[in-house]
Amino acid sequence: MSAELAQTVNHQVRLAARPVGLPTDACWQLAAEPVAAAGAGGVIVRTLALSLDPAMRGWMNEGKSYIPPVGIGEVMRAGGVGVVVASDSPAFPVGAHVSGGLGVQEYLSIPAEQLRKSGLARIDLRLGTLTQWLNVLGMPGMTAYFGLLDVGRPQPGQTVVVSGAAGAVGQTVGQLARIKGCRVVGIAGGPAKCEWVVKELGFDACIDYKHQSVKDGLKEYCPKGVDVYFDNVGGDILDAVLTRITRGARIVICGAISQYNATEAVQGPKNYLSLLVNRARMEGMVVFDYADRYGEAVAEMAGYLKDGRMKSREDVVPGGVAAFPATLLKLFKGENFGKLVLQVASE
Amino acid sequence: MSAELAQTVNHQVRLAARPVGLPTDACWQLAAEPVAAAGAGGVIVRTLALSLDPAMRGWMNEGKSYIPPVGIGEVMRAGGVGVVVASDSPAFPVGAHVSGGLGVQEYLSIPAEQLRKSGLARIDLRLGTLTQWLNVLGMPGMTAYFGLLDVGRPQPGQTVVVSGAAGAVGQTVGQLARIKGCRVVGIAGGPAKCEWVVKELGFDACIDYKHQSVKDGLKEYCPKGVDVYFDNVGGDILDAVLTRITRGARIVICGAISQYNATEAVQGPKNYLSLLVNRARMEGMVVFDYADRYGEAVAEMAGYLKDGRMKSREDVVPGGVAAFPATLLKLFKGENFGKLVLQVASE
Repeated sequence: MSAELAQTVNHQVRLAARPVGLPTDACWQLAAEPVAAAGAGGVIVRTLALSLDPAMRGWMNEGKSYIPPVGIGEVMRAGGVGVVVASDSPAFPVGAHVSGGLGVQEYLSIPAEQLRKSGLARIDLRLGTLTQWLNVLGMPGMTAYFGLLDVGRPQPGQTVVVSGAAGAVGQTVGQLARIKGCRVVGIAGGPAKCEWVVKELGFDACIDYKHQSVKDGLKEYCPKGVDVYFDNVGGDILDAVLTRITRGARIVICGAISQYNATEAVQGPKNYLSLLVNRARMEGMVVFDYADRYGEAVAEMAGYLKDGRMKSREDVVPGGVAAFPATLLKLFKGENFGKLVLQVASE
Repeated sequence: MSAELAQTVNHQVRLAARPVGLPTDACWQLAAEPVAAAGAGGVIVRTLALSLDPAMRGWMNEGKSYIPPVGIGEVMRAGGVGVVVASDSPAFPVGAHVSGGLGVQEYLSIPAEQLRKSGLARIDLRLGTLTQWLNVLGMPGMTAYFGLLDVGRPQPGQTVVVSGAAGAVGQTVGQLARIKGCRVVGIAGGPAKCEWVVKELGFDACIDYKHQSVKDGLKEYCPKGVDVYFDNVGGDILDAVLTRITRGARIVICGAISQYNATEAVQGPKNYLSLLVNRARMEGMVVFDYADRYGEAVAEMAGYLKDGRMKSREDVVPGGVAAFPATLLKLFKGENFGKLVLQVASE
């Protein structure tokens, strides 16, 4: 580690308290400490941009989930992209661009013994931009790809509905479904998002849940019913879709952003017996299960980005790690337009 | 048709009004009419026993489901077993025992043109008794067989939980799971049912939901979690099981008897996001989809009945069709012990 780096301050956001409902300022502690040494065989990554995801809300809760919660006092977990600034590992030379779980901090130091399980991976900027590596080529894109194709299993000509359609996962789900020959109907909040999804991304229609009845919209835009529903939101929208599914339909449970900040019990889908009537299936998915197939998905989707069949939109917010607490709230208020990214540094 | 038969009265129960909540006497009309002629190529079946099923409650509702509702003024739909008393069809000679949708009436006359789609089938009393043909070898048994094996897909050594464990479907689900090498835990109401399920049917354990916490019971009896849950009841019990499922678990939605008489909205499973965390699946099934494979299931289960590996219990209530309205309510109060059968006539 250079003398200069050793004297650099690493600003961080740590979890100070578990939230009840929406995370408040009291949940966070801004910290500043020297950049830690990584030791023999280790690497130090400078964070360039962080991915802000709905799943973060779940990581802040105590209790068993698909990964352990972030501990009180720990740096908040976050995926990000960065550049290697110090390295004793030939696999990650200084100057290499990488993605991985950097955390909400300016520098991540990874000792040799943690390098393998850290999930740090080099990224190729010829396949996509830095922020696309947090979007279509990153976790949201992987979630869309495996959730839609492996769990939803749409057939050409079938109708696919996706909620959170202008969000990170939703935009890619819809475009992939279109590329695979499906009729695609989005659900999003507000006319701007709906218009973008139809005009720019080529969805067949988009229902503005803030200004029209989802049930009526589904009736109008999905005259043959819904064969695959990719659910990012839960709540009333899931219930509305359940009334319109076809026989043998697949519902992919990817998330439930409408419920993550609920202080009362989560709202269960009261129309779930539609699964019985329609011999349909509701199935959960977690993207990490597909880690050994990310390469396949990246290769396919980089091709779509290159030939223009797929577009991506990132909502990049400046301000560095100190802006993290306020920026995260945009997700839960539906204020982001595209994949929400926090810019931490420039190269 | 003999002169004697032409003068016989056919007592019937017809749907008079759609219920709100539990069906009351006002929902039913007792009718009596002469036995109808079946014409050339037709058959007349005398009902011996009728199957009383939770699904009947759904058939009484207006609105789309997996089969059309019973119309107001129509004879209530019911499966049953009977004997052919007049026939112009070589496939169904007089004296033959049959099963099918006889309706809540003493005689069913089927014209030739309806015979094929009526689903009337001859039954072999060497394979099982008349009431077993309404239970293990009938719709409940078929539901258990295909729901458990095709949808639930349990592997030897896995843990299978079934609610309504002493009921028609539940008793066969549990015994089949045991025969297939699974650990089997039932959920039933009251000590008598629980004791029977464990001591007579060989379940590993049974939780008495009326007297103990289902959640605590699952913790105690399913230390490795629940791999397959066969749900006949919905409501709070479904929610409790959702907290204990394993990664990749399958939940078979066969019914939701706790919700069928709800006058408020159905209670959705508020713990459904456990499907996401556990990459698990909740899937509905309707037995009629497997009609062309009933023979396979009957053959296998008749073998188990014969060699004693499977037992069956029917709760046979006397009183004929006039007793139908009161007897049906036993189902929704959990008062039946075993498959509920209404005795209509003796041979």
